[in-house]
Amino acid sequence: MQTTSLKGRDFIAISDFTKEEIETILATAFELKLKRARGEAHHLLPDNNIFLMFYNKSLRTRNSFETGIRHLGGHAIYLDSNAVYTPAIEGKEQAFVTERLDDVAKVLSRYGEAICIRIFGDPVSWVHGDGNAYVRAFAASADVPVINMEDDMYHPCQGIADLMTMHEKLGSLAGRKIVISWAYSPSRKKPVSVPHSMMAGSSLFGAEVVLAHPKGFELDPAQLANAAANAKRYGGSFTVTDDMQAAFKGADVVYPKCWPSIEFMAAPGKDADWAAQDALFDANKGWICDDAVMSFAKEDCLYMHCLPCDRGYEVTDEIIDGPNSVVYDQAENRMHGQKAVMALTMR
Amino acid sequence: MQTTSLKGRDFIAISDFTKEEIETILATAFELKLKRARGEAHHLLPDNNIFLMFYNKSLRTRNSFETGIRHLGGHAIYLDSNAVYTPAIEGKEQAFVTERLDDVAKVLSRYGEAICIRIFGDPVSWVHGDGNAYVRAFAASADVPVINMEDDMYHPCQGIADLMTMHEKLGSLAGRKIVISWAYSPSRKKPVSVPHSMMAGSSLFGAEVVLAHPKGFELDPAQLANAAANAKRYGGSFTVTDDMQAAFKGADVVYPKCWPSIEFMAAPGKDADWAAQDALFDANKGWICDDAVMSFAKEDCLYMHCLPCDRGYEVTDEIIDGPNSVVYDQAENRMHGQKAVMALTMR
Amino acid sequence: MQTTSLKGRDFIAISDFTKEEIETILATAFELKLKRARGEAHHLLPDNNIFLMFYNKSLRTRNSFETGIRHLGGHAIYLDSNAVYTPAIEGKEQAFVTERLDDVAKVLSRYGEAICIRIFGDPVSWVHGDGNAYVRAFAASADVPVINMEDDMYHPCQGIADLMTMHEKLGSLAGRKIVISWAYSPSRKKPVSVPHSMMAGSSLFGAEVVLAHPKGFELDPAQLANAAANAKRYGGSFTVTDDMQAAFKGADVVYPKCWPSIEFMAAPGKDADWAAQDALFDANKGWICDDAVMSFAKEDCLYMHCLPCDRGYEVTDEIIDGPNSVVYDQAENRMHGQKAVMALTMR
Repeated sequence: MQTTSLKGRDFIAISDFTKEEIETILATAFELKLKRARGEAHHLLPDNNIFLMFYNKSLRTRNSFETGIRHLGGHAIYLDSNAVYTPAIEGKEQAFVTERLDDVAKVLSRYGEAICIRIFGDPVSWVHGDGNAYVRAFAASADVPVINMEDDMYHPCQGIADLMTMHEKLGSLAGRKIVISWAYSPSRKKPVSVPHSMMAGSSLFGAEVVLAHPKGFELDPAQLANAAANAKRYGGSFTVTDDMQAAFKGADVVYPKCWPSIEFMAAPGKDADWAAQDALFDANKGWICDDAVMSFAKEDCLYMHCLPCDRGYEVTDEIIDGPNSVVYDQAENRMHGQKAVMALTMR
Repeated sequence: MQTTSLKGRDFIAISDFTKEEIETILATAFELKLKRARGEAHHLLPDNNIFLMFYNKSLRTRNSFETGIRHLGGHAIYLDSNAVYTPAIEGKEQAFVTERLDDVAKVLSRYGEAICIRIFGDPVSWVHGDGNAYVRAFAASADVPVINMEDDMYHPCQGIADLMTMHEKLGSLAGRKIVISWAYSPSRKKPVSVPHSMMAGSSLFGAEVVLAHPKGFELDPAQLANAAANAKRYGGSFTVTDDMQAAFKGADVVYPKCWPSIEFMAAPGKDADWAAQDALFDANKGWICDDAVMSFAKEDCLYMHCLPCDRGYEVTDEIIDGPNSVVYDQAENRMHGQKAVMALTMR
Repeated sequence: MQTTSLKGRDFIAISDFTKEEIETILATAFELKLKRARGEAHHLLPDNNIFLMFYNKSLRTRNSFETGIRHLGGHAIYLDSNAVYTPAIEGKEQAFVTERLDDVAKVLSRYGEAICIRIFGDPVSWVHGDGNAYVRAFAASADVPVINMEDDMYHPCQGIADLMTMHEKLGSLAGRKIVISWAYSPSRKKPVSVPHSMMAGSSLFGAEVVLAHPKGFELDPAQLANAAANAKRYGGSFTVTDDMQAAFKGADVVYPKCWPSIEFMAAPGKDADWAAQDALFDANKGWICDDAVMSFAKEDCLYMHCLPCDRGYEVTDEIIDGPNSVVYDQAENRMHGQKAVMALTMR
């Protein structure tokens, strides 16, 4: 465990942290979970205020942060980015509608003890990476920890919750086959943050991590390299395949989820190509997690999803409502994991 | 008093509870009201979080729940149903816009200690009963108490506040003439929840309950039967009339309020008939609570209304701002009553 | 210090209070600021709830009130005026959309311990003074203190924060040259509240107060008279000029900020004349706070602004991001000043 290096830190991506720092977060999260189960007060951050700045909708993230900080003795302020002078980076400002992001970050740092941000997709015109750039810009200007509540690259709080859930259900992850798979959905407007964070986290613990997706849905090369490096350093393996059935064969964990093709998203000077995106999606409607593909996995294979889930597309009701589904545990662990992150970074 | 049967219960309709359970809620509410008057802390639900899921606007309900849970040591999270992935029942889902209601209920149950819901009218396309069906669906999936903040059938928190107010002002209700009357308003888009809850509550305590409305504004047969059965069991009477003046004659309490004709509302497979609704309303513009009709009531007859009130239509300013009006006391008692409901069901 | 006269008072304009009352607020604010710096709990208003009724956007005001009341042991409820039945004065009501303002004020007084309001501009159709009339109407009906979070005439919380900041940086204000200056912005839709409140506050402490603006941007005659009377009573001076450079010459403090011409705003029976407003603005684009005009001021002259700031128009980045800028201190002092106002009026 590394216990002294987290104070005052931003929490933007799992891959920004060492394995020992992640272990400290997990250990704290499990302890706080038990304290709540026993009804023991744990006001570690009395009268601390955090800001939840949302450019996008949320159910789990908002409510797990609001309840979690309350358990710690503090208070969360939900900020819809359109209900304030919308924080905008230099060059995208509009008089009396937006406010320079640096000013927002500096002002909020005077009032509260952390700034949490969610931004991806429409608010940054689907330019891949611009959501993360906003989060990093907040972190650069803020004098308090900035916590990423999901951008277009990373969802580190989900990553912690997913690690907690796998450790709770499986004990050690060493040698376990963990499959992160693409799945079809009629909605293309999603970030690639969840598979990135799952790869970064699960590759730290000696698992056999498999990434499965149709051709065209390749993830970020730096994130692939990070997962491969982790596998080399900590044991286990990291492989990529375009065969869903082969990937599921003998799996201990499957995490099938839709994400868009990065290639067809917008980039600086390049519009998003939604027609090509649609065509690629339409060609891969068979990527659904159902009884047929699950029959290749181990009998007690865990089914995971971050929710919300597009039922009937990404997964059948039988699987997500079945005995191996741990989706509500993942959702619950969001709260415990985030409490740990806050307690360690904001103290 | 029945004191052991409330823990963990949902609070959806007054008629779901025995008279002794309602008495336990009232006794608790009065005690908490006195504690606040004396400035005594009463943190009965420390660090408990509740969710306020609103599909419709609110002033009193939201603010009385938010302040009330704070007095109890907890915290309320205000959720506009459009600011989250809107909870939708199976068959009404839309990828990445809605989320299955069961999933929402199960996830929120992991984070907080109660889920409160308001839903009627536009969000359920004015299909009579669908609002209540949503509340019951939440209750079926949630692992924590579900509290009805008003649906298209019931407003039980208003029912408790109204009982508190009558008991405070009149002492015993036995033998008192209590008139629940229709009144005209230019707005037809309201639920029938308040008269239903007032009938269910006031009929438990031996009063002479009179329901007055023009022909065409009949209330739910099951609610009428419930009020009649209560009157038979607990003394008093329950009668229905279409004569406003006769109803007001000798009244101790009048509660004149607009509600729509159930007949002309939508039903499964049947659209709402707003033209017929309008015509029925227009034919009954004379149903206003003014000095003329109040002259038939007792001199100290209480004037009640749940607010917001359509002044100049449902009632004249003279009456609602006059000495016999108890509308602000009713509004205040919302808070105390709801604190009692939370303290008893969430403990 | 006058310490006994603040309990239960409304806080609507600086000019409603004596110099000694303002001193009591400032002294309390500085003490609470130190307590927070030392991490000392100061729950002066335990379980008190305040309502933040916003008809307009806000970043600083909302967040400084929400965090501040939390430090005092209480809780703030953020109310978007459109998310409730919008409080409307008599004659502007609409059935089931608005609710009479008096009723809202009386009901909220039953639930919480203060009502805070922001209203100017669009919600009152830019009729100059109608925002303040709404705030005064709330105060007339409410049974708890009403705090002005900015109307079209006054921003007293900003006034307190500005006084705190000047006292912190300069010690005594006696003999200091304080310049309140107009500045250009492409946005005309702002209130005149900040210069009014700055004039009312700074003229109490013996400073040489200078108001500078192009012809056509005259402020309210009663506010000018108040500043002149203060200068006469407490020493110092109050002068008005249309020469920005002359005003800045030898200044200890400059506060350049855009405000609209009152003459071209709407009034009862008279529409706003936006074309004339635009022409007047366009004729005065040279009123920017840049290195050139700042070279006339003292070398350590403070640059002040209430934020949000229209960078590149009201001020250059060099000045607002430079060493003499105290804008983030002003923003922080909002929180401490408001805590003092709450602690003194709500106790």
